[in-house]
Amino acid sequence: MKNSFWYIIILFLFSSVEIFSQNDKPNIIVIFCDDLGYGDLGTFGHPTIQTPHLDRMAEEGQKWTNFYVGASVCTPSRAALLTGRLPIRSGMCSDKRRVLFPDSKGGLPQSEITAASQLKKADYYTACIGKWHLGHLPEFLPTSHGFDYYYGIPYSNDMDRIKDIDRNEAFGNSKIEYFQVPLMKNSEVLEQPADQTTITKRYTEEAVRIIQNKSNHPYFIYLAHSMPHVPLFRSKNFEDKSLRGLYGDVIEEIDWSVGKILDALRETGQDKNTLVVFTSDNGPWLTFDQQGGSAGLLRGGKGGTFEGGMREPTLFWWPGTISPGVIMQPGTTMDLFPTFSSLADIEMPEDRIYDGYDLTNVLNGVGASKRQEVIYYRGTKVYAYRLGAYKAHFITKAEYGNPEETIHNPPLLYNLNIDPSEKYNVATENPEIIERIKESITKHKKSIQQVENQLEIR
Amino acid sequence: MKNSFWYIIILFLFSSVEIFSQNDKPNIIVIFCDDLGYGDLGTFGHPTIQTPHLDRMAEEGQKWTNFYVGASVCTPSRAALLTGRLPIRSGMCSDKRRVLFPDSKGGLPQSEITAASQLKKADYYTACIGKWHLGHLPEFLPTSHGFDYYYGIPYSNDMDRIKDIDRNEAFGNSKIEYFQVPLMKNSEVLEQPADQTTITKRYTEEAVRIIQNKSNHPYFIYLAHSMPHVPLFRSKNFEDKSLRGLYGDVIEEIDWSVGKILDALRETGQDKNTLVVFTSDNGPWLTFDQQGGSAGLLRGGKGGTFEGGMREPTLFWWPGTISPGVIMQPGTTMDLFPTFSSLADIEMPEDRIYDGYDLTNVLNGVGASKRQEVIYYRGTKVYAYRLGAYKAHFITKAEYGNPEETIHNPPLLYNLNIDPSEKYNVATENPEIIERIKESITKHKKSIQQVENQLEIR
Repeated sequence: MKNSFWYIIILFLFSSVEIFSQNDKPNIIVIFCDDLGYGDLGTFGHPTIQTPHLDRMAEEGQKWTNFYVGASVCTPSRAALLTGRLPIRSGMCSDKRRVLFPDSKGGLPQSEITAASQLKKADYYTACIGKWHLGHLPEFLPTSHGFDYYYGIPYSNDMDRIKDIDRNEAFGNSKIEYFQVPLMKNSEVLEQPADQTTITKRYTEEAVRIIQNKSNHPYFIYLAHSMPHVPLFRSKNFEDKSLRGLYGDVIEEIDWSVGKILDALRETGQDKNTLVVFTSDNGPWLTFDQQGGSAGLLRGGKGGTFEGGMREPTLFWWPGTISPGVIMQPGTTMDLFPTFSSLADIEMPEDRIYDGYDLTNVLNGVGASKRQEVIYYRGTKVYAYRLGAYKAHFITKAEYGNPEETIHNPPLLYNLNIDPSEKYNVATENPEIIERIKESITKHKKSIQQVENQLEIR
Repeated sequence: MKNSFWYIIILFLFSSVEIFSQNDKPNIIVIFCDDLGYGDLGTFGHPTIQTPHLDRMAEEGQKWTNFYVGASVCTPSRAALLTGRLPIRSGMCSDKRRVLFPDSKGGLPQSEITAASQLKKADYYTACIGKWHLGHLPEFLPTSHGFDYYYGIPYSNDMDRIKDIDRNEAFGNSKIEYFQVPLMKNSEVLEQPADQTTITKRYTEEAVRIIQNKSNHPYFIYLAHSMPHVPLFRSKNFEDKSLRGLYGDVIEEIDWSVGKILDALRETGQDKNTLVVFTSDNGPWLTFDQQGGSAGLLRGGKGGTFEGGMREPTLFWWPGTISPGVIMQPGTTMDLFPTFSSLADIEMPEDRIYDGYDLTNVLNGVGASKRQEVIYYRGTKVYAYRLGAYKAHFITKAEYGNPEETIHNPPLLYNLNIDPSEKYNVATENPEIIERIKESITKHKKSIQQVENQLEIR
């Protein structure tokens, strides 16, 4: 009798542990590319880039076809993802310097709460692997922002370019030594210049190592690839592998990396307990021609507020929990913070405004997101606004170079569901929609408080 | 002993029948859309058109991302598919009238052998359902070209337009009676005007009926949808179903139709013994704005010789036989004739030149196609030529209207693998490739014999 009592207690304890590790706090992995275009994956229509692992991830999970980022360039987009807030709220956007540079002295303020800091409240192990670009001085690094571990290049891989190399040589015939970017481990420099040919491979190994070692503890891995941002590099195994050339080699190595990560989850039995999100920070850098990606049927690219600049090929994967399918309603990277908080059962901070929505109902297939709007900032200004299917452009400007703003009054209006390529202006027929959008913008602007601009501090 | 002898004999006979019906002569179904764009399916990257059945067909079968038609408009493209030959060989293309019209007196010559006539040599039951557009006089109809059965509208659904309706009204507010096109059964007119709102549904029912009734006999169904050619019509169940609007409704009804056909095959146990091919006759009709489709990341559309006009979203499905995956090597609709001949074990006619290649090795996953070239005719002239990855444009011309030809010397040269959107001319760097392409064209032209032009006969 005594024996069976203890037997039952032990069984109960083990089964509780099982239930806890399987359900209570899922692991969370965000795979975040750099400058990947909407049209660059097989499942998003690219004809010559092979992405079998991402295609399978899409089939097993959810493919989001209207998923946005918070800005069309690196730094503000990353700030948006990690804080769940528009970069205007954290001072991480500017009209002059659009991103942080090696001479920048600013970064993501300590007052901001990253997804890593948030998940630490539920005792997550948190790792940032890859590109950071939210400040490289000690007080801004990942390890000062809630991450237990950092391994990566702290800003863009095209920075710290040596002086006597011109652009054509630097990008047309890229060599590691042309870009003296550091590879860091926590707050130490491991290698300089970082050997970028093996960077995707090494980031992947770091992520797989954590997956294998931390299987008994909930973790958050933010894997922010340095690729496919120019200069493009890939490891030996991927040289001349893709029909699409160098750019395709790079994407196919990222696809390999995704395969390695999902395999590691499956092999360690964590696939049923891990949410994996795949997306990118902004659209393709079109000014780099064949070395830039493709936005597919979308107009524009990185740096601009047409769809190609801010809509990204996005996948959510969590076998057994996520209801597989294609999701066409809008979502943004700012929704990740509240979604992760919900999954880890952590209260949202109440002392600040958030721009994200909890997506768990959509992921579970039991409801819709509350998101109706997408706000397209360029620097500190609202250039365009999407409400439901309609997007109004009040200002447009060429993606790069030093162009003039074009003011549109009435705004250009597109129905993005019917006209995803933004070709047919329907402003004249829809004055009442423009009015509603204007009201939404007025309301939104009232929520913005002046903060210190971090990108201009040198 | 005697009993078991007969038992074995009977078992042997039954198993032979089984082997024969399962393997020897597969059923063949071609689903051919009208003006479907390369980017209009979910699996080819459309963000707001839902195509779950086609997406599943792609996952279970082969998705061909470099698959072409024989011409960028209806009549010659259909002639190419059914004869396995470039339309210049059958007189089914012209520089003035680009397709057949209701006042045309020409059609596919009796001397041509269609895939249906070819498959009849192996005792196939052959049915043409849908749009024909290879001549509507009795001697040119499907039933005069090897088909046992015909049910459909014999030419484009925008023809026989009543006189007092202008274009805006006809297509902006389409009504059945605006287009007095006949619906035919064999050589009889069943209905005039055809009720186009139910046309996709009725074509589907015809195909499903044959699948259900002919399960003990090999058959060839050529199901050529009248949609999504304008005027766009769909049945009640699909009204306002798609986020993409009317055009999306039409595609989603075609997707439903594909689901019905594959379900009928599965339910009758014929899925392991039936090849289904899905493609379209040419690219999207861009001049119809939101009522036209999208070529995705490809340049141009219907009527032109950029990729958007002649590359089509193509799927091959045959569970258990076709090796699933993405096929990036070139294929064309002209390859279907020799492929079907091979599958049905019928000798290719030796008295004429064919422009197709047998694709069975690619379908089975055991080899590559021999196809290196794609020839882009506009009317009777070679405008462009693809050899391997490279495509040279010698002449370009706007898709529609009455534009001038632009001659390119040297030709525009694009690497379609690296640059599928035809943006970066690499002619200067590759004179030797241009030379090889010119030699190929010279050789090709020597194979062309003068025949009567069928499209100008009135």
